[in-house]
Amino acid sequence: MDSKKLKEDLARDFNHIWHPATQMKDHETEPPLLIDKGEGVYLIDRKGNRYLDGISSWWVNIFGHNHPRLNAAVTRQLQEIAHVMFAGVTHQPAIDLAEKLVRNTPPNLNRVFFSDNGSTSIEIALKMSAQYWLEVGKPERKKFVHLKGAYHGETLGALSVCGIDLFRTKFQNILIDNIEVPGPDCDRCPYGLVPETCAAECFEPMEQILNENSDKVAGAIVEPLIQGAAGMKMYSSVYLRRLTDTCKVLDIHTIFDEVAVGFGRTGALFVCQEYGFEPTFLCLSKGLTSGYLPLAATMTEDKIYQAFYDEYDTFKLFLHSHSYTANPLACACANETLDMLTEDNFFVYLKEKSNWLKEGGKRLEMLEHCGEYRQIGMIGRVELMENKEKKTPYPFEKRLGYRIYLEGLKRGVLLRPLGNVIYFMPPLIISKSEIEFMTNTAYDCIHDILK
Amino acid sequence: MDSKKLKEDLARDFNHIWHPATQMKDHETEPPLLIDKGEGVYLIDRKGNRYLDGISSWWVNIFGHNHPRLNAAVTRQLQEIAHVMFAGVTHQPAIDLAEKLVRNTPPNLNRVFFSDNGSTSIEIALKMSAQYWLEVGKPERKKFVHLKGAYHGETLGALSVCGIDLFRTKFQNILIDNIEVPGPDCDRCPYGLVPETCAAECFEPMEQILNENSDKVAGAIVEPLIQGAAGMKMYSSVYLRRLTDTCKVLDIHTIFDEVAVGFGRTGALFVCQEYGFEPTFLCLSKGLTSGYLPLAATMTEDKIYQAFYDEYDTFKLFLHSHSYTANPLACACANETLDMLTEDNFFVYLKEKSNWLKEGGKRLEMLEHCGEYRQIGMIGRVELMENKEKKTPYPFEKRLGYRIYLEGLKRGVLLRPLGNVIYFMPPLIISKSEIEFMTNTAYDCIHDILK
Repeated sequence: MDSKKLKEDLARDFNHIWHPATQMKDHETEPPLLIDKGEGVYLIDRKGNRYLDGISSWWVNIFGHNHPRLNAAVTRQLQEIAHVMFAGVTHQPAIDLAEKLVRNTPPNLNRVFFSDNGSTSIEIALKMSAQYWLEVGKPERKKFVHLKGAYHGETLGALSVCGIDLFRTKFQNILIDNIEVPGPDCDRCPYGLVPETCAAECFEPMEQILNENSDKVAGAIVEPLIQGAAGMKMYSSVYLRRLTDTCKVLDIHTIFDEVAVGFGRTGALFVCQEYGFEPTFLCLSKGLTSGYLPLAATMTEDKIYQAFYDEYDTFKLFLHSHSYTANPLACACANETLDMLTEDNFFVYLKEKSNWLKEGGKRLEMLEHCGEYRQIGMIGRVELMENKEKKTPYPFEKRLGYRIYLEGLKRGVLLRPLGNVIYFMPPLIISKSEIEFMTNTAYDCIHDILK
Repeated sequence: MDSKKLKEDLARDFNHIWHPATQMKDHETEPPLLIDKGEGVYLIDRKGNRYLDGISSWWVNIFGHNHPRLNAAVTRQLQEIAHVMFAGVTHQPAIDLAEKLVRNTPPNLNRVFFSDNGSTSIEIALKMSAQYWLEVGKPERKKFVHLKGAYHGETLGALSVCGIDLFRTKFQNILIDNIEVPGPDCDRCPYGLVPETCAAECFEPMEQILNENSDKVAGAIVEPLIQGAAGMKMYSSVYLRRLTDTCKVLDIHTIFDEVAVGFGRTGALFVCQEYGFEPTFLCLSKGLTSGYLPLAATMTEDKIYQAFYDEYDTFKLFLHSHSYTANPLACACANETLDMLTEDNFFVYLKEKSNWLKEGGKRLEMLEHCGEYRQIGMIGRVELMENKEKKTPYPFEKRLGYRIYLEGLKRGVLLRPLGNVIYFMPPLIISKSEIEFMTNTAYDCIHDILK
């Protein structure tokens, strides 16, 4: 390792790069890790330090870094063609991928529209939904209902259905209006119930708003089971059942955003498929390429598709495109990802891992300031609380999450808490001993920072 | 070639894929090309037919398909790490790329924010601009001024600054309001002038609107020199000079969208750099990776950056992120692309190619229904007109462009006219004989379709 070069490279980064979701002034005292290499669940920096990637590089990585099968899939496709436009043209990787997605999602979803990232997959769902209502003669159906705490991306359309003030406040000026509804809050249930046995009593506000506004609502959008950016807030599938049932009665589109929870994270391939929901739209990205390349898909059903299907001169076509739509290299990665997820009893073994994670995660509850540990599949989380009995939150300004993040790095684990929520979302190929290392390190970091 | 497999694959495409910017009913009679391979300027379909990629696969490809240096760059990076999150982390490909971009763009642009596609690069510029005005205490500066005929992407924020009805009409319901201004129209100049000698008299409406609204305008956005989706409409740099000068006086941000025209298309690396403009924001994508992988950059200057740079608890940070921000594989492609564009007198040789293209393109003017052939760098265009003297346009419904596209495919050239505008935008590595084949084929197709 050349420490002069490391210093120079970090200076070049500091001088020219604006990192996402980062107060750049923090880099004055805490420069970013300079990651040179990946290997399984580990990231390796310029100095040779190894960090267990506890959050799958922003929730994208499924099979670890530098996976031989994924590398081979990219290399193979590269020798044919890296990219070709996707209007008037198709290619084998996209055809195979569309079919695999249709085969592994609910029966109503038989149509795939590709794009580049989670935000665009949402924008496409919103635009398809709005245009659908226009084509069927109900242009007044143009509002989208979303939950408090929702995160669906940060392009302005996607941001208009986000329910987290932090992301919205500075852009309120340039956002269109949608309808926010209080959602589940299982950490502090206002009904005093627990998600394992409740009947989603918290669905009532949503039910009321949908009923009152059904003539102007195009669709309702949710992150099924887990609100990610809100702090991995988990809620019951009963809520989703009530939502899909109500929307069906009122003829409101349901948009399932499985960008974060899809591709095995919850212990099943997709939430909608596991529980038998049939959303009108399903948005996918992140894990789709196992964290290799940007790619997204918006899936929908015949009823929607047919409203756009007509002679050209009716101008009913759906006008939305990105140059790199269905990029063949990314599709090749996605095909390999879906093969690996659907063969060799993957989900049977994953169940075992999920149990190991639960054992490790549950230990955190022994700490004085850790609330209840909750887990769905391979996503586990705990909230740090000033007073555990009264569930008093720590003030945001203490930046506890950030301090635990820095402490974790010193000990070789990349955690990136969301505010006061410590969560685990490792690559699904993580081993038992790696799970133990990750959860034990989190335990030690929380203990030492809060002592 | 297995014709049964071809038929099956096309059926699978038809059953499951929703292609972008496509009336899918057209596929009943004209199935898409099934492209298996690329080689230089050629796309090769399942039957072994070769098509000269006359529009660089939606304006992205710079060095042809299957380029050994680009393939090697991807393969090299793949062996290190395909992707890692970009918050709290950096990597060599992004550092190198940011520095190369800063070195090759106007001196004021020293800061790079990465994302995935042209639309997101625009969304980021709009959001940065709006938040800047908020942070400096002028929240009423929140509107963006764009030109009639402008295209800046199709996510809802980007679409809100588009000036093409075709793309907006169906989504008017869910778009925020911005300010549209009549722009240059050199094909039918209302002042009766020609772009080579005019003083951009058509800037007057823009000047007036900027002056009248300067207290509420955040920024003005343009596609420098060429409005792409509007039909490769070319206009004078004098317009841009007047725009940047006026915005400077009124303290209005300028957003240069060089997503389509950047990376050598106009005969220079970037329009802003060639003419010495210093836009507040520069948006790049498409050619950035030479058409291999989705990647984008929004560049800006210190004045903007500093308005966000402060202690964390001021919450001035710019909150916008995409999971695959600065994807290392895409950055590796981009680094190789910029190296190839800036070495070996690339632009000297390109000038010669540009002359060959002009020779070929000018021939089209000999056709009865072809208007004036115009060209900037390696982008050439001509409008088909029912009456050339009166410049009467053909009715849209005739789908002349589409018919010429289909005819071109039969003859081995992929043209994809924009309405009645036939244009050339080939990979920059195209040879003299390939240019001749492309322009001669266009000539023959137009001749035969319009006869």
